[in-house]
This record gives sequence, structure tokens and C-alpha cells, in this order.
Amino acid sequence: MSRILRIAGAQMGPNQKADSREAILARMIALLEDAAGKGAQLVVFPELPFTTFFPRWLLADQEEVDSYFETAMPNPNTQALFDRAKALKVGFYVGYAELTPQGQHFNSAITVGPDGSILGKYRKIHLPGTVEPRAGDRFQQLEKRYFEYGDMGFPAFRGPESWGRPVTGMLICNDRRWPEGWRCYGLQGVELMLIGYNSAAYDPMGGTTESADLRTFHSTLAVQANAYMNATWAVSVAKAGNEDGSGLIGGSVIVDPNGVVAAQAKTLGDEVIVAEVDFDACRQGKEKMFNFAAHRRPQWYRAIVDQVGAVPPP
Amino acid sequence: MSRILRIAGAQMGPNQKADSREAILARMIALLEDAAGKGAQLVVFPELPFTTFFPRWLLADQEEVDSYFETAMPNPNTQALFDRAKALKVGFYVGYAELTPQGQHFNSAITVGPDGSILGKYRKIHLPGTVEPRAGDRFQQLEKRYFEYGDMGFPAFRGPESWGRPVTGMLICNDRRWPEGWRCYGLQGVELMLIGYNSAAYDPMGGTTESADLRTFHSTLAVQANAYMNATWAVSVAKAGNEDGSGLIGGSVIVDPNGVVAAQAKTLGDEVIVAEVDFDACRQGKEKMFNFAAHRRPQWYRAIVDQVGAVPPP
Repeated sequence: MSRILRIAGAQMGPNQKADSREAILARMIALLEDAAGKGAQLVVFPELPFTTFFPRWLLADQEEVDSYFETAMPNPNTQALFDRAKALKVGFYVGYAELTPQGQHFNSAITVGPDGSILGKYRKIHLPGTVEPRAGDRFQQLEKRYFEYGDMGFPAFRGPESWGRPVTGMLICNDRRWPEGWRCYGLQGVELMLIGYNSAAYDPMGGTTESADLRTFHSTLAVQANAYMNATWAVSVAKAGNEDGSGLIGGSVIVDPNGVVAAQAKTLGDEVIVAEVDFDACRQGKEKMFNFAAHRRPQWYRAIVDQVGAVPPP
Repeated sequence: MSRILRIAGAQMGPNQKADSREAILARMIALLEDAAGKGAQLVVFPELPFTTFFPRWLLADQEEVDSYFETAMPNPNTQALFDRAKALKVGFYVGYAELTPQGQHFNSAITVGPDGSILGKYRKIHLPGTVEPRAGDRFQQLEKRYFEYGDMGFPAFRGPESWGRPVTGMLICNDRRWPEGWRCYGLQGVELMLIGYNSAAYDPMGGTTESADLRTFHSTLAVQANAYMNATWAVSVAKAGNEDGSGLIGGSVIVDPNGVVAAQAKTLGDEVIVAEVDFDACRQGKEKMFNFAAHRRPQWYRAIVDQVGAVPPP
């Protein structure tokens, strides 16, 4: 069984509120075809790629909020992407706003296999932002208002035989900055981490100290180090650019199990990056430096689960 | 109270087995004086700086092993460093091989205040290497043979008033690659992480895929990202160069709470790096992106403490 897979990150430029669903889906299909043309067998799309990033606004009307959500996946608004991918025998990771039959709202992602089957699903656990809007700010970060916290944990799954059966994990946006999520996947032997994001190009909580360059650096750094410390490949893909007047960083990246960048986007627009990924390259780290069974000391890690916030010494 | 502290990393070149204790201590005192001359109020020395890195050899004679250990700190072999630091009103972090009155062996570090008092102590938890030597290898990594695992957890402490009372943590060498230790300090509000290391310039477990450049990159990356993800300053200091025929990486580094390198060593020898550290620069991260109380979800992190090794899906 070959354990080498050609993977693409399909960075997207901005989706304006005025853009139709059809126009955005057509761009995603064009990216998929571009990636397939470059030999990619798996294409990673951003978080919430089907619409603009609506949590930047306080929306009073729940019907308007729900118009950004998918009640099934696929559904008529997204079916063409699934059909084209299946025809091309290309799998994909895609984020979406999920509205369940029970009326729950999640920030979710799925990975779809080359045969069109859904291989795995994840609901974002580390929701950033606030429930209530911050007075006076032009843009909000209201994910905690519109979404419930993910309730599925960090469930790794095996990719198909044609991909080399990699142990695969999914994270969404802010999750990539939290080593706990990576480690929960690491403890399942993760070899491939798939991540989509929408990250403001300024401090979304109102500060002025974080430039787009610094925030792109943070984004790349977190993925590099967590990939290294869990000896996994990682593909982290942005929606980027000036979206409805609010800036989003780019910097989509494919990182190897040493934390070394294998490919990185250069623009803030629609852009495909590709890397050839050898899952056996994870073995060096997993068997030596990060042989967890040999080296971890969980009896000293209890604060990680016993405590939520920081408690400084007196 | 000023929260700005001038900190030095005192990278050391190699200590050959043939070097006398006195000669090595004299080099450490020279580094201390160099750092004090550059205005440093706190100097960070490497792991096990008083001798060569003895775990690279299989030593049959326990008396010889114990000759590398300190039965008290300070003791006549190290007193001159403590005296000079106190006279200069400079604090320091220093590693040492600790032999307790009960006969226990630990890979330890202490931080000494500007008045000569011991502010905190740490015993290395993530011991790398093996208990038994690997057949056929010229150099071993026998820390698991010569040391017991640290038994004090990750105890943060406050620095003195003259330093701005920073919440301070200590790690030793391999610990810096394990996000669990960093997080346990992060949950105590750490603002300053002190680390000493001896890291082989090749794969110490016998592989050939890790060059000195890659291993220096790993070392810096782990410190940068864990500093960022815990919104803390970090000072990580090497013993470097060709030590008794075995190569050690350099790359000693001072990193800010954004994960940005503030100072980095350029040589593999005795070298002082200095940075001015503002502990209030930790607030942006701690109050926003890494506001743990607002954003952590420990109910989903249980595998981190319930499990030691990785368990891949079937």
C-alpha cells in the first residue's frame, strides 16, 4: 500500500455578502478542478467557505442567521461540489455552518472520500469571540453567539486505502492554536491534520498590536509546532483578503512532521497549493522523540483537565 | 513596580571530560560578569552546565556516575558562582545533577534571586533516551538510566519585586518539546519560562535524518510556539559545540509572548545574548486569544491524562 498522497490546499479569496451562493460554489469547483489538474487526490477548503464570515455582524433576525447554515450535507446548494469531486475521484475537507434537525448550530467540517462518502465529521470546540457584541466596534467576532461548542470531541479516522489509510484529524480555525486538541489527535496517532480558517488580519478583539504579518506568523507557527510535536502532516487553509470591508489573513500552508513548511500560499486570493505527502515520514517522530508511551508523564498533567482558567501564584 | 527586566542567556561551549570543575566554573563566572556588564539582572545557564554531558556514556561504576552529581546546592564546587552573582545582585537559573540525601538522582534546575536565595526548584519530568544502552552506537542517551523522573510537577513561583514579580516556570531540555508542561505552567499564568538544554546535533536515537540545522529549528520552533500559546516570555539556553566528540546544537534564544525571537545566539561557543523583557507584554495574549477561562474546553481533553501512549484507530 502506497502511503504517498498528493494533497492540495484550496485557499479562497473573500466571499462578499453580495456574492451569490452559486458564484461562490463555482469558484470552489474551479479550485477543485485546478487542484485535480495538479494531481491532488485530496483538497482542503477553508472554514465556512460557502458564504461570507457572518459572525462579524450582530444579526437580530434568526431567520437571517439560519440562512448561512446547511441543514444537510450535501444539500442542493452544495451538491455540485460533491458531484464534481466524485467524478474526479478527489476527496475533500470542507467547513460549513451546521443546523441540525434538533435546531442545534455548530461550526463543522467534514472530510469526503474519493467515492463521495463522508469519512469523518468534526464540530469546532474552541469557539473564539463573544456572545454579546462589543460596543463601538465596527466588526464583531460572535461565534460564541451563533454556534454551540462542538460536542463530538476530537475523533480521528482512517483515510481510504488509496490514500494509504492515514490516521486523519480535523480542526477548525482557532482550534489550531490550542495544543490540547492536537494532542488528543496525537494520542490517536494522527498522521494528517486538516484545518480550515477565517482569521482577522487585525486583532479581532479590538486591540491594535496585532498586524496582518504578526497574525499570519502566529497562524503558521502554531501549525508548524503542533505538527512537529505530534509528528503529523498538517494542511491549514484560509479564506483570505478583504471580505465585506474586514481583512482576513492568508498564509495557507502544508507542513511536514518536522514542522517544516512544504508549501505556502503567496496571495490573498483563490490559490491552490500542493504537496506530496509521505505518511511514513511521521514514523521518525512517533517512534523516537515523540514516542508517547515511552516519554509522556500524565500523572503531572492533571491541571490540564482539572482547571479551566489560569490561577497565578499569590 | 516596573515590570521590565533585562535578561541574559549564557550559552556555553562544550565542557570536555578532561576539563576541570574549576575551569568550567571560571567560564560560567566570566559569562555571568559579561551578562552583568550588559545590564542583565537575570542570567540563564544551560542544563547540566558544571560538567560534560555524562549520559552519553554507559558508566559501570556508580561512584563515577555520582561524581557528576551535586549533593547540595550551593556546594564547595559551585559556591564561587553563587558568591559572584550575589555580589553583582544578579539572579540566575542553573541546571545540575542532583543527588539527594536519600540517594535519589534527578536532573534538576534552580532559580536564584539577586540576594542569593533560591526562589524555585524543578526536577526534569520528560527524561529522554533509554535505560539500556543501544548496541553498536558510539554515543548513548542514558538519562532514563541515571535519573529518576521529576517528582515535583511544574511549580511556578513569583520572581522578586525588583524583577516585577513575574510568574516564573522552569523546564529542562526535552521538556521544551512537550506542550503539556508548558500548559501546566500556563495554567499558573506563567510570564517567564526558563530552560536549559543539551541537545545532540544529530538524531541521538540512532537515525540519520536529523541534521544539526533541523534539530536547531525544532528547538527554536518548540519554544516559539509554546511561548505564544501560553503568552509568556521564554529563555532557552544551550550547551553547544563539539563535546568529547559528540555534537551539541546551539541556537540559544529569547522569545517574546508572540513567539517572536528577541535574541538568538550565533555561535556554538560561550556567548551571552540579552533582551529587555516587559512582562506586561504577556497581557494581550492572556486576556484575549489565550484567555483560558473563556476558551478552554477541558471536558474534551481527558485523553491527555487518561492515556500515555498513542492508540490509533483500527
